[in-house]
Amino acid sequence: MDQTTLIGLLAATCTTAAFVPQVIAILRTGNVDGISVMMYSIFTVGIALWLSYGIKVNDLPMILANSISLLLAISVLSLTVFKRWQKKKNPCEESQIATA
Amino acid sequence: MDQTTLIGLLAATCTTAAFVPQVIAILRTGNVDGISVMMYSIFTVGIALWLSYGIKVNDLPMILANSISLLLAISVLSLTVFKRWQKKKNPCEESQIATA
Repeated sequence: MDQTTLIGLLAATCTTAAFVPQVIAILRTGNVDGISVMMYSIFTVGIALWLSYGIKVNDLPMILANSISLLLAISVLSLTVFKRWQKKKNPCEESQIATA
Repeated sequence: MDQTTLIGLLAATCTTAAFVPQVIAILRTGNVDGISVMMYSIFTVGIALWLSYGIKVNDLPMILANSISLLLAISVLSLTVFKRWQKKKNPCEESQIATA
């Protein structure tokens, strides 16, 4: 494998795997306060478009990498929206328990 | 311009521009609570590798898109680390003001 291909593979691995710690952090802490929903909405559309592009040009590594990225981006987006909705629904959840 | 090129351009625009609302959100609210530093560390390395790949294969759109993405990813990463360090340094900043 030549050096350029290796750099490309490492790059794809990093930009795809990067979202795993974000998903884990949300699942572990439930804190999504600083995460921009707008960012993940635009990013998810972008990754879906990269996937379409990969299918159009029939590039298997591009299809695989973007399929995984799409799943991870959708996970962060849906978890963020869900946690924020949950917080909005029960804004005083902790104090309600404390005063029950 | 053919349909495939258009999809590629739209995809690159979305995955690059997506980070702008995140930078704006941090600058506006100062809240970085749910943001994973690990995610942005790996992502920044990944984008730097994509930029090296773009330089190696001499692909100008790839070089341009990844240069902008790298700047945005570094901005989110450094702002997150800085705000978290600031919070750690002054964990009771608000209550100190309240009791002053």
